[in-house]
Amino acid sequence: MGEMAYKTRIYYDDTDAGGVVYYANYLKYCERAKQEFFLSKGCDLFKLHNEGIYLVVSEVKAKYKKSLKLGDEVEVSVALKNIKRASVELLFEIRNGDGDLAAEVEILSVSVDKDLKIVKLPECISNLT
Amino acid sequence: MGEMAYKTRIYYDDTDAGGVVYYANYLKYCERAKQEFFLSKGCDLFKLHNEGIYLVVSEVKAKYKKSLKLGDEVEVSVALKNIKRASVELLFEIRNGDGDLAAEVEILSVSVDKDLKIVKLPECISNLT
Amino acid sequence: MGEMAYKTRIYYDDTDAGGVVYYANYLKYCERAKQEFFLSKGCDLFKLHNEGIYLVVSEVKAKYKKSLKLGDEVEVSVALKNIKRASVELLFEIRNGDGDLAAEVEILSVSVDKDLKIVKLPECISNLT
Amino acid sequence: MGEMAYKTRIYYDDTDAGGVVYYANYLKYCERAKQEFFLSKGCDLFKLHNEGIYLVVSEVKAKYKKSLKLGDEVEVSVALKNIKRASVELLFEIRNGDGDLAAEVEILSVSVDKDLKIVKLPECISNLT
Repeated sequence: MGEMAYKTRIYYDDTDAGGVVYYANYLKYCERAKQEFFLSKGCDLFKLHNEGIYLVVSEVKAKYKKSLKLGDEVEVSVALKNIKRASVELLFEIRNGDGDLAAEVEILSVSVDKDLKIVKLPECISNLT
Repeated sequence: MGEMAYKTRIYYDDTDAGGVVYYANYLKYCERAKQEFFLSKGCDLFKLHNEGIYLVVSEVKAKYKKSLKLGDEVEVSVALKNIKRASVELLFEIRNGDGDLAAEVEILSVSVDKDLKIVKLPECISNLT
Repeated sequence: MGEMAYKTRIYYDDTDAGGVVYYANYLKYCERAKQEFFLSKGCDLFKLHNEGIYLVVSEVKAKYKKSLKLGDEVEVSVALKNIKRASVELLFEIRNGDGDLAAEVEILSVSVDKDLKIVKLPECISNLT
Repeated sequence: MGEMAYKTRIYYDDTDAGGVVYYANYLKYCERAKQEFFLSKGCDLFKLHNEGIYLVVSEVKAKYKKSLKLGDEVEVSVALKNIKRASVELLFEIRNGDGDLAAEVEILSVSVDKDLKIVKLPECISNLT
C-alpha cells in the first residue's frame, strides 16, 4: 500500500525522555517522505520552493500504533489519495525495522505562492492523476 | 473556549526555509500546553514521568489556518473534551499575537506504564470530570 | 556576570532518550537569549531579518557542566565580550532552577545581507560598545 | 581526512527562516555521524545505551564556513583525535554536495553511567587507539 519513499535510522535527536521517538517527529519523517515521493515522480519541491511555490500542510490526521526506539530502522511509504485543483492528499505508513506499523498519517497539502495565496498545483503534481 | 495554558515567542529554531513556523512544531506547543494545563489542575506530568506513568499521544487531528512568523507572540488554549478510563482528549487552539486562530488541534493521549502497557489514568486527571 | 535574558521550562521536546536535554538544544536557548538580549537593548533582530540583515553564527565554543532535566526551570544570561566592525561575541551562562551552572557558551556572530555577504553591524549593535 | 560516516539530504525541518540550515542542527549531524562512526568500528552506542553506558558531550568547538541549503547533499566525516581513560575527542568535517567545507567541529565526549557518574570508556572504544 503505497511506495517506500524515505528510510532513516532513529538517533538520539529523534527521541525524548520517554525513551522513544517524540510524537511530532513522526511528522518530520512524513514531510521528508513527501519530498522524496514527489521527487521520484519528477517533481522537485525544493526547486519549486526556489521558484516561489510551496506545498504547505493544511490538515493532519495521525494515529500512533507503536513506539519507535533508538537505533530502529524506519521506513515511510506514501500513497496518493486525492488530487484537487490546489491541494493534494497523501497517506503515509511509518514502519519500524520489523515491518510493524508504527503510525498512519494523512496529510492534506495546499499549493501557495510567496504571499501564501492559494495557487493551482504545479503540473508535475496535477499530472499524477 | 478553553484556558490559556502556554505562551511563547517564535524564534528562528521554530521556523523553516518557508519563512514561517514548521508545521510539526505546532504540536510541540500543544504538548507543552498539555503539561501546563494539567499542572494548573494540580497534576504534574513530569512527576508522573519520574514515577513511571506516561501520557503518550495516540491520535492527532490538526487543522492549520494561518502561518506563524518570526517574533510572533503565540498563545495556546486548552479545553478538556473527553475523559475515559485510560485516555483523555484535549482540544487546542493556537493563536498569533493578533488573536487570529492559527491552528486547531485535537490530541488523544493514553496513560501507559514503563513497559508502554495501558494503565488507568492517574487520579489527578480522572478526577477532572 | 551577564544579564538574564531568557527563561524556559524544560519540556519533552527538549530532551532525548538519555533522559536529559539533548546537547544541541542548549544552543537553541543561547540563540533565543541572543534575540532577547539585543531586543532589551533596543535592537530587534527579527525586524532586521525582515530588512535583509542577519546575525549568523560563525563560531561556537560550549562547555557542558551539568545535565538539564524534564521540568527544570532554565535561565540564560548573556554578556557582551567583544564587538568588531561586522561581528559580535557573546558569552552565555545556562543555569538550572537551583542556580547551578549547566553550560558556558561563547558564540561569535557575523552580520550578513541576503546574499550572505558580510556587512557592517547594524548601528543598534555597534553602538553598544 | 577522517572517514565518511553520515550522509543526509537537507529537508525543511533542518532549515530556518534564514533560508539555510539552523546552526544547532549541524551538531545533530555530528552526533549522528558519531553513532555511525563507532558502529563501523564494531561499537554500537545504542546497545551501550541499553546497558546503561552513555557517551555524553562535554565540549564542543564549531567553526561555520558555509551555509547548507534545502536539498543539499551533506556528508560528515569523522576522525579520532584523542582517547583518554573516560573520554574521546572526535573531529568532524561537514561538507555540502559540491564537497565544500561547511563546518569543522570538535566534540569531546565522556562516558558516564545511568547516574551520570564518569566511568571508563567501553573497551570497543578504548581499543581503537
